[in-house]
Formats: sequence, structure tokens, C-alpha cells
Amino acid sequence: MIFYCTKDALVVGVNTVFRAVSSKSTLPILQGILLKTEADRLILTATDLEISIQCQVPVQTIEEGSVVIPSRIFSEIVRKLPDTSIHIELKDQQLYITYYSSNIVLKTLEQEEFPLLPNLEAAQAFSIPVSLFQNMIKQTVFACSSEEKRQVFTGLFMQIENQTLTMVGTDTHRMAYKTTELPEAENSTFSGIIPGKTLTEIYRLLRDDDETVDIQYTESQVSFQFGAIHFLSRLIAGQFPNYKQVIPNTCETKIHMPVAAFTEAVERASLISRDSALGANIICLKLVESTLFLEQNSDVGRISEQLEVEAEGKEITISINSKYLLDVLKVIDEQMVFELSGPNQAGIIRPLNDPNYVYLVLPIRAS
Amino acid sequence: MIFYCTKDALVVGVNTVFRAVSSKSTLPILQGILLKTEADRLILTATDLEISIQCQVPVQTIEEGSVVIPSRIFSEIVRKLPDTSIHIELKDQQLYITYYSSNIVLKTLEQEEFPLLPNLEAAQAFSIPVSLFQNMIKQTVFACSSEEKRQVFTGLFMQIENQTLTMVGTDTHRMAYKTTELPEAENSTFSGIIPGKTLTEIYRLLRDDDETVDIQYTESQVSFQFGAIHFLSRLIAGQFPNYKQVIPNTCETKIHMPVAAFTEAVERASLISRDSALGANIICLKLVESTLFLEQNSDVGRISEQLEVEAEGKEITISINSKYLLDVLKVIDEQMVFELSGPNQAGIIRPLNDPNYVYLVLPIRAS
Repeated sequence: MIFYCTKDALVVGVNTVFRAVSSKSTLPILQGILLKTEADRLILTATDLEISIQCQVPVQTIEEGSVVIPSRIFSEIVRKLPDTSIHIELKDQQLYITYYSSNIVLKTLEQEEFPLLPNLEAAQAFSIPVSLFQNMIKQTVFACSSEEKRQVFTGLFMQIENQTLTMVGTDTHRMAYKTTELPEAENSTFSGIIPGKTLTEIYRLLRDDDETVDIQYTESQVSFQFGAIHFLSRLIAGQFPNYKQVIPNTCETKIHMPVAAFTEAVERASLISRDSALGANIICLKLVESTLFLEQNSDVGRISEQLEVEAEGKEITISINSKYLLDVLKVIDEQMVFELSGPNQAGIIRPLNDPNYVYLVLPIRAS
Repeated sequence: MIFYCTKDALVVGVNTVFRAVSSKSTLPILQGILLKTEADRLILTATDLEISIQCQVPVQTIEEGSVVIPSRIFSEIVRKLPDTSIHIELKDQQLYITYYSSNIVLKTLEQEEFPLLPNLEAAQAFSIPVSLFQNMIKQTVFACSSEEKRQVFTGLFMQIENQTLTMVGTDTHRMAYKTTELPEAENSTFSGIIPGKTLTEIYRLLRDDDETVDIQYTESQVSFQFGAIHFLSRLIAGQFPNYKQVIPNTCETKIHMPVAAFTEAVERASLISRDSALGANIICLKLVESTLFLEQNSDVGRISEQLEVEAEGKEITISINSKYLLDVLKVIDEQMVFELSGPNQAGIIRPLNDPNYVYLVLPIRAS
């Protein structure tokens, strides 16, 4: 393997695949990045067996070949290379990186041990515009659980049916639900649970100038193709809870208010509640006529925030974990409706400008 | 105590003094910030008994008074306050913070327990332009030791004598030495060891639009006045080593080279050396005719960097901790001279554009 390339091409390639490098695997080969030249491109691949990321960058190939290189040192080195033509050559199982009159020689890993990636060529497929997909991920992925013990909740339920794409995330305390119409996906049906990590990493890698994401899927794998990147992920096995059933159709109280003002009030109230006897982050919301009070007291002091709102229906007092509110308030804009049905029933948050998004949050039960 | 103020005034005041709040003291009162209104200003004070920071911000005082408030929660709250007029009032030893129709009530600390700051009014004084002082701190403070066990090395030696200000920092492995002429300080003489933390914090707080820093000193204390800030620090007791004696007057090898090219080569070589058997960060410099080689090999591979330089004198091979090189290369510009006198003698780095700065680094002894 011999090729010339720029520093920038290597940096883009390594940064893209680096997140798939296993951070804690006992298999040393998973610490490596597979480099492979094909015509005038270098294909970089990394995998932790759960996700695999592949990225192509332009190079000038002199002799085709491939090698697996330790990712950490290679990543650090490419970031520090000078902005000049870099010559890379594999000789005697060592990688020679040459620039100006200087050179670096790196030991390589056993290429035979690098896992083969599953082939999804025969899979079904549909496409989604990048901006739409980014927004869907942003509005749902934060609601996933990060606790490994109940695997289905660490993933996002994704379904395509009747030209509608649905994504749902929940950690059992709150749930984010988003749909979008995909008129061109008329022949696609899919449902599966995609690891939250997969979608977080894809969100990070998506660029506005990538126009669409092509999604392919089988029973156990899903792949995302966009720009020069091919992202492969296993699906999580298991049954996702019946999310439609938990969304109430009616409510006793409706509160219309601006997202920004509510966010600031919740942020301040949550500062006081951090040392609260009630538990971390729990704040008390109280609707009296058209005033919403956010209250909390703790060892350090007490707070009473007042917001003038548009309210319909019954007055109510309810305790909620402020973290679950702040998470959703970051991903919606302008005006919102907060629907409540009593102190022990789930609250529903809907952005006024988006009928396709619903967020459900469970209260702290009144004792 | 009753006053009105803006959010910004509180944020500036709290952020300025916050670094003096004790992070690990067993005295709870040192977790507090003293607030005191005097005419139309609020004076905030924090201290950990080693350093004290005082900052004045404009407020509209209705009733003078003072209080000690827990710093962490107060700092978090002021950052989250809305951009509106804030009303603050001390009532029944609780601090009422009111904005719009909302309010926060914070418990306060026992003001009698807050330490009195030493009075330096009768002290000697001199002034230094901010930009000069910033540069002197930047070029010397990094060479201090962070190990508490030998206190004199955690401080910077500062001396004013014959209208010349000298600052020296050393951790015994390297030393940074900087002088500057202060023609107006003709009657000042001072020498003392100032804690590195003091100078690091002052560097952080200095603003370009503060014109001068007024420095006052006694036997055991030094104070820095600039802008709205009054920074007080104890001096470190003890004898600073004879720094003049260790700077050699002659050398066997002189290497002229650009700072940027040398920095990049050292950075790359140090990546490889991190896993070196020789020890972390040790790189080998070898001058052959007018080529400087930077070499290293370790478990991950090897590197040979070549730099074309202007050299005078003997060829040489020397091993140096790359961290000690990178630290100084960050604070000098353009062209440098590296003076060497054999593999076991100290190396001297001088920026070509500044005759008042000298950096000395000890090599790793050849065995």
C-alpha cells in the first residue's frame, strides 16, 4: 500500500470513524482502524461490533493495499501533521508516514483479526432529507435511558409505515414521540429499536450539505449512508412498550406559555431544589387562575417564580423532575402547551408550531 | 441592606471574586462571599486566607449594609437571573432577591466569622503597565512547581531594584527568567516570593482596558490594584535559589531556528515518546552539521524529524523532556536561539526579539 494524501483528508477520515473505536473492548484489534486504498480513495473503517463507521477520503493511490493501525496514536499523529503532501507506505508490516525530510514509522495490528462487516446489500431501503432526520434525532434521542440494564430503553423505536416515519424514545419516566411524512417511502415498512448511541453519533456526523440519508435495514442491522460516510449498527432485540397507549387524549388543564420564559423559571427553580429534601431537581408547579408558580425550598433557601400564562381548565399543583422539563425545552421553540390531568397523571408538552411532536413526563407522585 | 442592580454587575462581581473562595477549607465561612454596600457601589470580597479578591460594582443603594452569602448557590443564581433590574434586600438574616413578580430567599452565613483582611495602606508601592505585567506573568508562571512539598518553588520570585522588575519561576528542572525596566519606580525596592496561583488568577482577571497595576507590599503581603479589583496575597516565606548563578555565560553550540517549526517537530516527537521506555515525554535532539534531528522510539513506533537550522559550534546529542520545551515555545515568538554546552549541561532558550527573557532547561542525564 502506497499513497499520497493531504493532512486534512486524514483528519476528516480519522475523526469520522474514531467514535466507533471500542473504548473498553478486551479485543486489541478493535482499538485499530482499518485503512484500505481503492482507486483514488482511502476507506477508513472502525467498529466496536455494535456500530461500524466507514468513511472515504480522496488520496492519490500508487499501490493498492490495506492495513490495521492503532487508532489512538494514529489519530494524534494525523492531527499534528504539517499541511503538506503526506506520503504513506506499508513496508514489512510497518506504516511509514513521510513529510518533508521527516518520517514516522508505526507498528501495525494483525489485519486478519479485524472483523468483517455484515453485508446489507439485499436489504430494504428508504431515504430521508438530512435536516428532517437531524431534527427527529434531536427531539427524541435525549429521552432514551443510559442505563444498560434494560436494553430496549437505551434505544429509539423507529418505524416506517404508510409513508410515515415515527421515532420514539423513553426511559420510562418520560417519552419523546415524533412523526414525519415521507411521501416517497411508499413501499417501505420497517420497525426496530436503534441504539441511542448510534443516533447520537449520526447526529454528530451529519452535515447540512449532505442532502439525504439513505437507510437500509434487515432483521438485525440497519445502515445509514450520507456524504462519504457509511454507518452500520445492530438493532436492539426486544419488545418496545406500547407508546401510543400512554398518551392521553383528554386533559383537565391546558397551559399556553412561551418556551423561553418557562425555561428560565425552571432553571432558576432547579438551582434551589438541588439540595432539596424532596429529592434532586424536583420542583413544584402550581397553577392559580392565570398565574403559574414554580416553587421550591431546600437547605439553602427558597424560590417562588411567577409566570403569567394563558390557562384553560382546572387549577393544579404538580411536582416534576426539572431535568425532564429542561431536556425537552431545549429542543422546542417559541410557544408550548402543557396539558395536565391531575397531580398523579402524566403531563404532555406540545410545541404550538409542530403537531407532530409530543413529549410526555410523569410527575413525582403526591404522597 | 437594600439595593438595586443589574444582573451583569452581579455576574462580574461574583465571577471576579469566586476564585478566591476556598475549595477545600474546613471553615464554612470561607465558602461565603462578603457583600457590602457603600454609597453607590457593592463591594464583594472572598478569601481562602492565602489570597483575597475584592471587586466593586455599581449599584443603586437604598440602605447600606453587609452580609455573607454562600458562594456556590449565589454564583449559580446570579448567572441565571433575567436581564432586568434586580432588587436585593437583607431581612431577618435572609437575602431576598426579587425580579418581576418572582423572588428567591437565601439563607446567609454568620458575618462575624468572616476574616478581616490585612491593611496595606502604609506599604510601599510601584506601578506597572498592564500589558507588560501580563506578558511577564505569561512567560514565567508556568515554570513554577505545582508540588506543595517545596513551597518556595510554587511561587515566583519577584524583585524590584534599580528601576528593574525581575520575575523568576523554577521547579528545579527548568527556570524562566524575565526582566523589564520601570523608569518610574526609582524609589522602590522589593523582593519576595509570590504564590503562582496568585499570579495565575491576576493574569486571568487583567483586562486590556485596565491601564496599570498598582502593587503594594509589606514583609508578608502583597496587593495588586487594577480596574475595580483589589487582589491581596500572602508572600511565601523562604529563600529563593540563586538563579543568576545557574545561567551559563558561554556555550559550545548555538542553534538559531524558527519557533513554529521547532514546536511542531517537538509536538510530533513527543507523541511517540509517550509510551517510551526512556520515560514519558523524553525526546532526543541531535545536531549534525546544520540539521537538527528530533528522534524517539517506543512501543508504538519511531519518529525522525529533521529541521534545517543555522548552527554554530559543536555537534551535540541531548535528551530533554518535551513538556519543558513545549511550555516555553508557547510563550515566545518568531525566532529563537538554543544554546547548549554538552549532553549533561543546562540548555538555554532565548527569543531573538527579546533580550530580557531567558529560559533554562536541564537535560535528562546520559547514562
